[in-house]
Amino acid sequence: MNRKMVFYTLGRIMLVIAALLLLPTACAVYFKETTIPAFAITVAVSIGIGLALTFACRTKNRVIFAKEGFAIVALTWVAASAVGALPFFISHEIPSYIDAFFETVSGFTTTGASILENVEVMSKSLLFWRSFTHWIGGMGVIVFVMMFTNLSDRSLHIMRAEMPGPIVGKLMPRAKDTARLLYIIYIVLTVALIILLRLGGMPLFESVLHAFGTAGTGGFGIKSDSIAGYSPYIQWVITVFMLLFGVNFNLYYLILIKRFRTAVRSTEMWTYFGIVGASTAIITANIFSMSGSFSRSLRDAAFQVASIITTTGYTTVDFDRWPSLSKTVLVILMFIGACAGSTGGGFKVSRVIILFKMIKRELVKLLHPRSVRVIRFEGKPLDEATVSNTGSYLAVYSVCFFAILLTISVDGFDLETNFTAVASCFNNIGPGLSKVGPVMNFSCYSPFSTAVLSAAMLLGRLEIFPILLAAAPSTWSKRK
Amino acid sequence: MNRKMVFYTLGRIMLVIAALLLLPTACAVYFKETTIPAFAITVAVSIGIGLALTFACRTKNRVIFAKEGFAIVALTWVAASAVGALPFFISHEIPSYIDAFFETVSGFTTTGASILENVEVMSKSLLFWRSFTHWIGGMGVIVFVMMFTNLSDRSLHIMRAEMPGPIVGKLMPRAKDTARLLYIIYIVLTVALIILLRLGGMPLFESVLHAFGTAGTGGFGIKSDSIAGYSPYIQWVITVFMLLFGVNFNLYYLILIKRFRTAVRSTEMWTYFGIVGASTAIITANIFSMSGSFSRSLRDAAFQVASIITTTGYTTVDFDRWPSLSKTVLVILMFIGACAGSTGGGFKVSRVIILFKMIKRELVKLLHPRSVRVIRFEGKPLDEATVSNTGSYLAVYSVCFFAILLTISVDGFDLETNFTAVASCFNNIGPGLSKVGPVMNFSCYSPFSTAVLSAAMLLGRLEIFPILLAAAPSTWSKRK
Repeated sequence: MNRKMVFYTLGRIMLVIAALLLLPTACAVYFKETTIPAFAITVAVSIGIGLALTFACRTKNRVIFAKEGFAIVALTWVAASAVGALPFFISHEIPSYIDAFFETVSGFTTTGASILENVEVMSKSLLFWRSFTHWIGGMGVIVFVMMFTNLSDRSLHIMRAEMPGPIVGKLMPRAKDTARLLYIIYIVLTVALIILLRLGGMPLFESVLHAFGTAGTGGFGIKSDSIAGYSPYIQWVITVFMLLFGVNFNLYYLILIKRFRTAVRSTEMWTYFGIVGASTAIITANIFSMSGSFSRSLRDAAFQVASIITTTGYTTVDFDRWPSLSKTVLVILMFIGACAGSTGGGFKVSRVIILFKMIKRELVKLLHPRSVRVIRFEGKPLDEATVSNTGSYLAVYSVCFFAILLTISVDGFDLETNFTAVASCFNNIGPGLSKVGPVMNFSCYSPFSTAVLSAAMLLGRLEIFPILLAAAPSTWSKRK
Repeated sequence: MNRKMVFYTLGRIMLVIAALLLLPTACAVYFKETTIPAFAITVAVSIGIGLALTFACRTKNRVIFAKEGFAIVALTWVAASAVGALPFFISHEIPSYIDAFFETVSGFTTTGASILENVEVMSKSLLFWRSFTHWIGGMGVIVFVMMFTNLSDRSLHIMRAEMPGPIVGKLMPRAKDTARLLYIIYIVLTVALIILLRLGGMPLFESVLHAFGTAGTGGFGIKSDSIAGYSPYIQWVITVFMLLFGVNFNLYYLILIKRFRTAVRSTEMWTYFGIVGASTAIITANIFSMSGSFSRSLRDAAFQVASIITTTGYTTVDFDRWPSLSKTVLVILMFIGACAGSTGGGFKVSRVIILFKMIKRELVKLLHPRSVRVIRFEGKPLDEATVSNTGSYLAVYSVCFFAILLTISVDGFDLETNFTAVASCFNNIGPGLSKVGPVMNFSCYSPFSTAVLSAAMLLGRLEIFPILLAAAPSTWSKRK
């Protein structure tokens, strides 16, 4: 393990985070808020840690292998959340540090689960920072850093660990160029959304923050009733953009380089929209009798389906009061999640497709034990390593899920609350059902469970393995 | 597909089922009950179907491949349940046929979930038949048939499809001898249990029925409060025997042939007892404050842990009123299940171990992509087909679980009820939580959901793949 290089890289990333913190600081100055010292201290802390690490850990051996890559990613996310929580804590707007940490992890991991009882009393600069963490976390903290600098000649290791999904497309030969391209697409879509929200009459500040939350598939609202108070036009715009940010970004790249036909043939995209369509249809029919209005039912259903499958978590209605069938559809969507290579979380549509193909292959194998069948995906044969990784991922996903569920059950809440709280945090969604339903929040949990659920969000966002590897003592042994 | 041979074999199995039905018929005669005609008609129907099929489908081509094996197993279990439900229905003691079918499937699959509001008003002969289906289903309907007859020269195909767990030990060279050996161990343990229950002062009839329920890890009680009314001695005896029937029967074979050392080294056995010990300790500590008595808490905890992990489903206490932590432990045990090659259901301890080894291998692979590692289990290297089968099994298990959950949610019950109802039926346990808790029953579900849950029990008992293969139209095509 090249420890020096790990901490040196972490130091440089901390400096970038300090730079990112200047945005909410400027916001605090602009609105003349009392949070200015809180942000100033946090920026100073970030710079301090950043400089200390870069000076102390300067090394000539800049080689990064997979081990170092996973360690950097895990440490970056924990450190960014730990430092990012300071403004909330120092300003006393969130008096408990563990709650502030939960809120920041929820931001960076684009979960959107909140411990805030009343979000509308928060200062604007903290609301800005809260939503901005969604935007950074959506595409990736490190991918952001990579735009400006080649962390090493093997940066792809790091990118792989941070990007969601079973297959990370190497769009460009150099990681730096891939990172830039992804962020350009990301920025263009975000700006387009801000403009469309402005056209719907939403004030600029709110448009920007909602765009951050939508782009990162985060879901932190700035109103107590999330998106419910906005016009149908705005609700539909957000519905469409949540879905767009849940699509594999490789498709936008393919469209950019005019390979429309390849883009249109994507199995994952069609499966994703198929699931969205079917779920919306079921829920619309199921809730129609509640509102009596078809357009209202369709809008609510489409919004909630898009919000949950993309793991955003905005709400326009208290779906905890929907019939059991609709709630079960939403719970299943929580686990499916968005497309690989998008800003969304969950298990990912592509992995679900691979699972179905594994099942089909197993059925054939049971009848013809000597048959050898390659699984094809998106028109190409999938290598066995990816297939076996998908199986192992389902295994580690299930084990972690039940372990977290067991741990938080010490707080004594009912199974529906705990199950959906874990499903929501682990899949980076936001709201659950019952005590953590759309009109509730996570403040009911004890500090211990709040910490456990924070860990769940990080595990889910980084897809478990990087955190496990970084936590294993053998990773840190001096022998390479 | 050798259709003739499939139906010919099914015909012979129906004749054996007719023979098995003579036992409850004799019971009805002995107790002079009004159920005699119901049983007589059912025996006649079984013989009729059996003879019709054996005559109509006589064939010289007696070759059975995997395809035929899966079809025979799936058809046998559905047919046995359909016919086995007749006595309940004809006698009007269960007025709805779908309910009677549910009850019989629950019996054969050793689930023990019941739709009966009051089991104590049932006639003795029907109670006998109900518990006897547990005993037959535990070791396997077809394994039973195999004791007397070689169904074909490739009977192992059939045995594999009916026996639970990832690896089916071929204890003896001939399937017939393996079947006999398994049933001898099974009978010896059952008789030992009957004797111990008699020694505790339980009447003979009740001892036999409870022994059937314990041996098959079924769990149909004959008292409204299941085992709660019996003495601590009897509760401890049943606890120990539930655990014994949850152990891989290969171990008993190893003890029989005096290979004690191999038996004692079993990873699966130690893991199983480790999980039982840890779960009992957690629950004892968690429920201690409720009863105030350590011995009472330990006994209730041990009984319930043994009952749930072995998927039996007997109860001595309404664990739906236990604290959340204890309930969550039980829910997790529902999914783990007993050892492979036992009469218990669930995902199986050995599969859980293989999943953990898959995760460990994946972690190593992420650090050293070119490493090749063989997974070892029980001291032997595991072939890749078994590893990949375990991954695919988890995939198909998860997909089926959510599909069933979604389907029964149309009845509108809460998530806790539906989730544990599916967990309970799919893993062949019996009770769930909330509306299907230990003191409740499954009569709340609509006929549609009752049918779906019956299918869930069959899917779980036969470990999904045989049913899926038998249901695929391509399996039945005339081209071989």
